[in-house]
Amino acid sequence: MTSMNRRRIAVAPTSRPAMFDAMMQAVIDAGGEPAPIAEASALMWADPAAAAEFPGVVEAAPELEWVQLPYAGIENFADQLDPSKTWTCGKGVYAEPVAEHIIALTLAGFRHLHTSIPARSWPKQQGRNLLGANVTVIGGGGITESLLTLLEPWRKKVTVVRRSATPLEGAVRTVTMDDVTSAIAHADVVVIAAALTDETRGMVDADFLRAMNDDAWLINVARGGLIVTDDLVDALTEGVIAGAGLDVTDPEPLPHGHPLWEIENCIITPHVGNTPEMGLPLIAERVRRNVERWIAEEPLVGLVDVEAGY
Amino acid sequence: MTSMNRRRIAVAPTSRPAMFDAMMQAVIDAGGEPAPIAEASALMWADPAAAAEFPGVVEAAPELEWVQLPYAGIENFADQLDPSKTWTCGKGVYAEPVAEHIIALTLAGFRHLHTSIPARSWPKQQGRNLLGANVTVIGGGGITESLLTLLEPWRKKVTVVRRSATPLEGAVRTVTMDDVTSAIAHADVVVIAAALTDETRGMVDADFLRAMNDDAWLINVARGGLIVTDDLVDALTEGVIAGAGLDVTDPEPLPHGHPLWEIENCIITPHVGNTPEMGLPLIAERVRRNVERWIAEEPLVGLVDVEAGY
Repeated sequence: MTSMNRRRIAVAPTSRPAMFDAMMQAVIDAGGEPAPIAEASALMWADPAAAAEFPGVVEAAPELEWVQLPYAGIENFADQLDPSKTWTCGKGVYAEPVAEHIIALTLAGFRHLHTSIPARSWPKQQGRNLLGANVTVIGGGGITESLLTLLEPWRKKVTVVRRSATPLEGAVRTVTMDDVTSAIAHADVVVIAAALTDETRGMVDADFLRAMNDDAWLINVARGGLIVTDDLVDALTEGVIAGAGLDVTDPEPLPHGHPLWEIENCIITPHVGNTPEMGLPLIAERVRRNVERWIAEEPLVGLVDVEAGY
Repeated sequence: MTSMNRRRIAVAPTSRPAMFDAMMQAVIDAGGEPAPIAEASALMWADPAAAAEFPGVVEAAPELEWVQLPYAGIENFADQLDPSKTWTCGKGVYAEPVAEHIIALTLAGFRHLHTSIPARSWPKQQGRNLLGANVTVIGGGGITESLLTLLEPWRKKVTVVRRSATPLEGAVRTVTMDDVTSAIAHADVVVIAAALTDETRGMVDADFLRAMNDDAWLINVARGGLIVTDDLVDALTEGVIAGAGLDVTDPEPLPHGHPLWEIENCIITPHVGNTPEMGLPLIAERVRRNVERWIAEEPLVGLVDVEAGY
């Protein structure tokens, strides 16, 4: 294949126009040439929901060597992963906005925005710093990696609790779930960023909350089911912990009239760690970088392990 | 002077016990030996308000070679700056919490906490990122430097408007006040972090606000007088800008009944960018580092320019 051929990139389908346009622009910005699928060396798939159309498009693409999928989770495309091609996805791209939201919720709690925002006269002066704080994160995936990166200059001391004790770069300590109690005991903020599994469901219960510092905040950006909601209501009501910032709840959406709405030091956001609007420029940037690398014959980012299927 | 003598450090006065204790601990942690003032090679001054006692203490200190003052502003001690000694202060120490508060207020606005926090049922999903955003900062001092440091991994594009066009590290563009209009035109957030002077008083007026993007946030952590409050009320009411995050106001404290309290997209905090509780560990850390450097005969941090008086 000549280097000219590598420049020919198809973007399809057009069913999600904003994503199509953003990916097309990224291809052009990277020095690619938008090409019909029949002549394209690579395909940027522009609609995560349109998996049903995918086989037909790929069949009409004899030159195709590389496929970029739009989301981090590719379960809809798992049956299509032809090992003779290179596959990339949005792996790691969407973790960054969620990590940013962890920081937004933590700062909101530490800086008492939950009391200042509803105030109608000069509130009491109070607050504390995330700078230099002890942060414990449950979960060692992409969100935690992004959080460690974003907080790199903040002199924080991060303990990570994950399945394996393999250290994460930037963490002062990495432990397994066996040591969770000691890992949360001295934290100023405990962040839940783990997948919801049979093992993790309800892990934040009354015992977990009692093991936390009484001036610590709990932040959940993962799934509501990791927390026993009734135990959290009790802990907040009784001052067992200082507050909670929840981007996910159980039940979700949290119904009107639920007791959590009335607890001042519980900050609730409607599952907006990563919104479609935030994700679009991020996946477009992934496309731009990968097309540049593809043209330069450099290794692509976000490679799918075809055998493992993710 | 022998290296043993250099270890002898006095902390005085005792009128502010929390600061005295924190500084004393920092001296010990750094390997210093708490010493009476008559035998001390260095003095850590532990009460910014007690300038009147200062000359008497220094007179009783024949061995004194270095004085560490507690605050960044040293105007109370300006008459005491004897050029035969080395003087250091809290320069740069307190900027970091204020920079953190800029990030707290910006994220609160971008992540719609001003609508989520008062909500009593699942709010609308909305939000945008500080990650990768265009940030314009008015002022090129320590707060701006700290902000650039804290946001270093955030892929942001920062334009700095300052008196001289000398570039700040980490900024993509540094301009003077002559170019302020173009500097704020494409900003997602405009941060006011300048000193209040005759030149800057009221600089954020109706024209300034109209020159901003209508989806941009205005953040003020400097002094309320930099903004014409009535013009800001109008701009927020008429949708000229997206919102404002104010840690300082004019008048301050903002009186109950002031129209700003009723504007949903105006987030007001009670001048808590840096609180005494936040500052104490920071000045203690400065003391610890400087005592280490003093003992090791390395250059001290936060040197006062005795001729200039700051």
